[in-house]
Amino acid sequence: MQDRIQSSFDRQSLMATLGARLARVAPGAVEITVPLAPHVLQQQGLAHGGLTFSIGDSAAGYSALTTLSEEMEVVTSEMKIHYLAAPKGVTLIARGRVVKPGRRLIVVAADVHAVDAEGAERHVALLTGTMIPVPTG
Amino acid sequence: MQDRIQSSFDRQSLMATLGARLARVAPGAVEITVPLAPHVLQQQGLAHGGLTFSIGDSAAGYSALTTLSEEMEVVTSEMKIHYLAAPKGVTLIARGRVVKPGRRLIVVAADVHAVDAEGAERHVALLTGTMIPVPTG
Amino acid sequence: MQDRIQSSFDRQSLMATLGARLARVAPGAVEITVPLAPHVLQQQGLAHGGLTFSIGDSAAGYSALTTLSEEMEVVTSEMKIHYLAAPKGVTLIARGRVVKPGRRLIVVAADVHAVDAEGAERHVALLTGTMIPVPTG
Amino acid sequence: MQDRIQSSFDRQSLMATLGARLARVAPGAVEITVPLAPHVLQQQGLAHGGLTFSIGDSAAGYSALTTLSEEMEVVTSEMKIHYLAAPKGVTLIARGRVVKPGRRLIVVAADVHAVDAEGAERHVALLTGTMIPVPTG
Repeated sequence: MQDRIQSSFDRQSLMATLGARLARVAPGAVEITVPLAPHVLQQQGLAHGGLTFSIGDSAAGYSALTTLSEEMEVVTSEMKIHYLAAPKGVTLIARGRVVKPGRRLIVVAADVHAVDAEGAERHVALLTGTMIPVPTG
Repeated sequence: MQDRIQSSFDRQSLMATLGARLARVAPGAVEITVPLAPHVLQQQGLAHGGLTFSIGDSAAGYSALTTLSEEMEVVTSEMKIHYLAAPKGVTLIARGRVVKPGRRLIVVAADVHAVDAEGAERHVALLTGTMIPVPTG
Repeated sequence: MQDRIQSSFDRQSLMATLGARLARVAPGAVEITVPLAPHVLQQQGLAHGGLTFSIGDSAAGYSALTTLSEEMEVVTSEMKIHYLAAPKGVTLIARGRVVKPGRRLIVVAADVHAVDAEGAERHVALLTGTMIPVPTG
Repeated sequence: MQDRIQSSFDRQSLMATLGARLARVAPGAVEITVPLAPHVLQQQGLAHGGLTFSIGDSAAGYSALTTLSEEMEVVTSEMKIHYLAAPKGVTLIARGRVVKPGRRLIVVAADVHAVDAEGAERHVALLTGTMIPVPTG
């Protein structure tokens, strides 16, 4: 499962473009981290909301994928993000989780934290959404 | 207003990283386009959901900004995206709009279309969300 | 189709409890109205948000149902509501519509307007959500 | 605080119409219960989604209210509900909570469980949304 998710992640060119890395894969719980580098910011020099969303959505989706057999993958049907605090720090970490597994749809969530130079975390975003299982290409 | 929004857009390093461009600024209606380049895709070679979200969110936010005076900018409070169809084509175009203006919060929406080589459009995503006006830095 | 939807609506005891009425059924577009009676209010004497949601959700769901064959019904998977203005007046009217039909899921929306004694309308809520087709019991 | 919230709840005529009761008030955590009575159902005889939403939204809103001073109340700006399982049983219980307090807006959530005759609970809905503090009438 770890290999399958790493391989899928490696084929997502946007993740490489953003500098994101798959940090942890466990059943129903996947983590993605990304450094707050100069090329992923908004106009005030903070992490862009699109960056926060992208890693949160991917972490949630891969969490759903851990509940499925090898012949399946998932696509996002809909996703909501609440921004909770200014994403300041050196890294963002998104922790995906499964709220409700299912055969037809999987309800997922993700929490995104900003991590400062001392390792202190601040909750900066909450995502909830729906993943749809589909047969692999 | 056009200059103000172009200047803000130019300071969003993520937009340059994604290859996005501000295509149109009108009161309550802003458009952003992005080519479907090899560095912004997901594992199946389609536009990444994070790309679609990023330009939709920015188009919606700038649409809200056109309703405010120069001393104000906006931050996204929450945003929801429905993915409607596979984002195939050569370009994505996000059209932001204001659903309900306000002093304390602005309800916004955006429609994202995929455009093929012949210019035909396909509706690929619908976003709705809340922008909060804040005094400029 | 009109009969099928009226019959389903008549079996929803909550609709009768709220005083709601099916006002119009057309392909992909269903309307539900409810008087702002004393038993459906919140603490300030305005229409309760739960009332607005209930008729918006039902109007959206029945709009989806008009796109399906007789052996199918729909269940709401998720629904989002933006409250846009204070729901003052004598009646609420919810107009459901289909954003994207589909076999596995149907993306829907509804606009709720408050109508005053002169018939003037005010847009008070916007709903967007996902309906899942399921075989009829 | 308990009195203030009970008094506000008692003025919500919809809650009485639905048969809902304020079951618990603690800082940042409010519970509302409602019996699954014959007058609050949908066409298949299950709890209507509007019922589930109504008590979830109110529980979330009152949870936010516990974080504010007496001169303030809250209005719902937007709310999303995910339906997770069929709401079968004898009672629904909604547990509201505060995700992120704030002066301008409060991010809230609620979990709704169906309770059967033996007291066993089943998670049937998850709500996330935004409350806006406003001065009391």
